[in-house]
Amino acid sequence: MTSAHRTTARVRYGETDQMGFAYHANYVAWFEIGRTERMRDGGLCYAEMERAGLALAVAELGVRYLRPAFYDEVLQIETRLVAATGVRLRFEYRILRAPGPGASPGAAEEVLCEGHTVLACLGRGGRPTRIPAPFDVQIAALAAADART
Amino acid sequence: MTSAHRTTARVRYGETDQMGFAYHANYVAWFEIGRTERMRDGGLCYAEMERAGLALAVAELGVRYLRPAFYDEVLQIETRLVAATGVRLRFEYRILRAPGPGASPGAAEEVLCEGHTVLACLGRGGRPTRIPAPFDVQIAALAAADART
Amino acid sequence: MTSAHRTTARVRYGETDQMGFAYHANYVAWFEIGRTERMRDGGLCYAEMERAGLALAVAELGVRYLRPAFYDEVLQIETRLVAATGVRLRFEYRILRAPGPGASPGAAEEVLCEGHTVLACLGRGGRPTRIPAPFDVQIAALAAADART
Amino acid sequence: MTSAHRTTARVRYGETDQMGFAYHANYVAWFEIGRTERMRDGGLCYAEMERAGLALAVAELGVRYLRPAFYDEVLQIETRLVAATGVRLRFEYRILRAPGPGASPGAAEEVLCEGHTVLACLGRGGRPTRIPAPFDVQIAALAAADART
Repeated sequence: MTSAHRTTARVRYGETDQMGFAYHANYVAWFEIGRTERMRDGGLCYAEMERAGLALAVAELGVRYLRPAFYDEVLQIETRLVAATGVRLRFEYRILRAPGPGASPGAAEEVLCEGHTVLACLGRGGRPTRIPAPFDVQIAALAAADART
Repeated sequence: MTSAHRTTARVRYGETDQMGFAYHANYVAWFEIGRTERMRDGGLCYAEMERAGLALAVAELGVRYLRPAFYDEVLQIETRLVAATGVRLRFEYRILRAPGPGASPGAAEEVLCEGHTVLACLGRGGRPTRIPAPFDVQIAALAAADART
Repeated sequence: MTSAHRTTARVRYGETDQMGFAYHANYVAWFEIGRTERMRDGGLCYAEMERAGLALAVAELGVRYLRPAFYDEVLQIETRLVAATGVRLRFEYRILRAPGPGASPGAAEEVLCEGHTVLACLGRGGRPTRIPAPFDVQIAALAAADART
Repeated sequence: MTSAHRTTARVRYGETDQMGFAYHANYVAWFEIGRTERMRDGGLCYAEMERAGLALAVAELGVRYLRPAFYDEVLQIETRLVAATGVRLRFEYRILRAPGPGASPGAAEEVLCEGHTVLACLGRGGRPTRIPAPFDVQIAALAAADART
């Protein structure tokens, strides 16, 4: 049992809104960072997929917002590739925050949000396409590794 | 049977991405425009709610992307308030595009995306709060009107 | 003497920041809306320029922020094409707000910001290119019209 | 002679536009990251300034775009505090890219853009305010350090 992949993002000033929270649409960009870095960590560079004439287009998005994120916080983005068929990938995400300065020792991280995206692989001309080699092998390895987390 | 509320948004250049489509996070902002104008159309100004010490925070978001939107298109945003309990509101959205210039006469609009948001009413200090008068009456009237669409 | 071209934009919730103002980067998007609509009003559709293999890339940007803009305000975007050489266009902008509800009769609009952009025309491959026919004629007509404002 | 402060930002997918470049408004957010990290590196946390009732509002912005930035590139953001009077701060920025994989050995970085912002210190109620202690001392130290770069 290993840990899920993590990367970080710091909340930018322009990502806040007048409620004093990070605006909810920005989590979508953080999910994108999460899956891009998850793929890179597994040897799969999304920019190279595009140079090979492929695109992963977001077909479905879901987010549950549990607690607000604040300006200048360093967020933890946890990403898992939970399903990969020939054409579609499903990633699941959690965004977490370290315990605050006043937290008791051993306090747990707070989960700020949970979400998922389903991505469809498009080939030239924008048609749904099975993910071709060598990307399919890399994707399968990622999914197998994430199944153990 | 009346029609659902509609408003429009034109796709901005900065809302496109290098895939040549409107970036998927922007739909979230369009949903926000949709519900703000739906409420305004029913006499309920969200900015006034905030001046009265209330906030509607997004607690849940779901989007299904069906077709891409392109730069400079004028999108139709269709919004329905489908549920209003004391604390939570559920809005449903469709984003549509008029038939293109080469479409056959009478061609239908294309649905680009469907989605929903659940909003929680927060009072001062960020606590969940029943929506107070006079906003509760306006919300109930909106929900009743939208139930007939 | 005619008036300068105007179009409007309403400040979106996601465009505010925790200072309670419209975040300063959003004015750049409003300038883009201003020049796009200025061009469209003169018969020149920027999307068509791109379909013809041209791009207008921003080479220079300047903004002076005078007063903050607030959520839900309808801003006036005033745009003038003040210089058009073969390759470069200079647009100047002002963003204004109507007098508030408590203003005295005949109160003037408030100028929130002034700015400019210089755009360079790029052809295929991204090389600087003289703006070709028929766009050059349309641009010249726009500049002549704006010189009278 | 020391080097100017640097931090990095990776170009996000949503920051690209259909021209295939990073959209020009995003440089404004990168400048903000640059000055926030410059201040943090000198012991000055902007979030703490806000908690103390102060705000640094952008009063002026200028950008010269020299070369495009592309998706997934790691950009270098170079920031200098070049002037600090009692109320106003002027920061200057350069955004650079490391030489590409095909570059000759010893090839220099490419400067993608140069810019500046002037920030005004606002106190409670939004009035221009001299930067108070202890922030004034930290700012003076930053300006002195940056004058040697």
